[in-house]
Amino acid sequence: MKILKVPESTIVRLSMYSRYLTKKYRIGIKQISSDDIAEGVGVKSPVVRKDLAYFGEFGIRGVGYNTLSLNNNILKILNLDLEWNIALVGLGSLGRALASYEGFIKRKLIIKNIFDNDPKKVGTKINGIEVLSTECMENEIWKNRISIGIISTPAFAAQETANSFVKAKVKAILNFAPIALNVPSYIEIRNVDLSVNLEVMSFNMSYK
Amino acid sequence: MKILKVPESTIVRLSMYSRYLTKKYRIGIKQISSDDIAEGVGVKSPVVRKDLAYFGEFGIRGVGYNTLSLNNNILKILNLDLEWNIALVGLGSLGRALASYEGFIKRKLIIKNIFDNDPKKVGTKINGIEVLSTECMENEIWKNRISIGIISTPAFAAQETANSFVKAKVKAILNFAPIALNVPSYIEIRNVDLSVNLEVMSFNMSYK
Repeated sequence: MKILKVPESTIVRLSMYSRYLTKKYRIGIKQISSDDIAEGVGVKSPVVRKDLAYFGEFGIRGVGYNTLSLNNNILKILNLDLEWNIALVGLGSLGRALASYEGFIKRKLIIKNIFDNDPKKVGTKINGIEVLSTECMENEIWKNRISIGIISTPAFAAQETANSFVKAKVKAILNFAPIALNVPSYIEIRNVDLSVNLEVMSFNMSYK
Repeated sequence: MKILKVPESTIVRLSMYSRYLTKKYRIGIKQISSDDIAEGVGVKSPVVRKDLAYFGEFGIRGVGYNTLSLNNNILKILNLDLEWNIALVGLGSLGRALASYEGFIKRKLIIKNIFDNDPKKVGTKINGIEVLSTECMENEIWKNRISIGIISTPAFAAQETANSFVKAKVKAILNFAPIALNVPSYIEIRNVDLSVNLEVMSFNMSYK
């Protein structure tokens, strides 16, 4: 059950604010204003203040925010103060890109398992992680307490992969295969279509 | 200048509706209701009707929409009735995944040029497209009338790539490098961070 009705766009921006705060804190910026955050991520500053107001009072009027503490609060809101274990299925070029995506590990999103059904790939290593056969998926995922499953298989294998994830009790599935999947409603699922970004740009270009 | 103030979430959904309509039309569905579209893409049907209402009257009350004509209208709205020429720079694993992403070509998003600065990659072919040296980027992009540039380089090379895109007069840039880029305001730019999706899921999981 959701406690708060927070727009998804707010969550996406929180994720962006946090990345920006991390960067600023690393170069020694201890205090930060909503104007600075807004400029850094490319939104208007009232948006920043409104997004944060869903979750409480974090700053001091006229002074701004403590960079570290605001970032820690956002990470807690996003449930990213602890690590999430992830399993990835499908080691095509997209799977390979995701498996070595630096952005994940920085945000405590840890890929623990990689599976593929190609015997030539099974046994090889990506970033120190051994590629396992999809045959041992359910056991391994269950054993490693994986919470999030990533599907980067071809479309025809995606539903079967999702079924295995559900059986192995993952909580969420991120699907990159170009097909809609059926999963029980208690599973959090997101479909990523890489062409949507281009299509939004295409729309915007027509009005520029 | 934008004529209409349409929320970006509407544009993202139009893109999803269109994909669903294409699929339905292919299997012979000539007439479709907003309920059916809503169910197919996982939203509520008043949302579908509201999204479409920004752009006019497309259906007949009680009858629904003509699948083909609604899809054609959406494609026109999204500016996807004509092809867009795309250049991709940076042939790491993500670049390779994007270069062979089937979703693009289906939507008339045509990758015409691929560039990399690694001499071992230059001259090889991906999906029939020869990989060119980044040295000839500006000339080639200009010559091929590329409208959209995709950046899938490492972070340190992204700004330089963006500068070349701007000089070569692309209209839009899709940036997958984990860094904010400075480009003139007449350039449409989108940053894609693949971990944002996982972070939105992480947030949602905490309230389930």
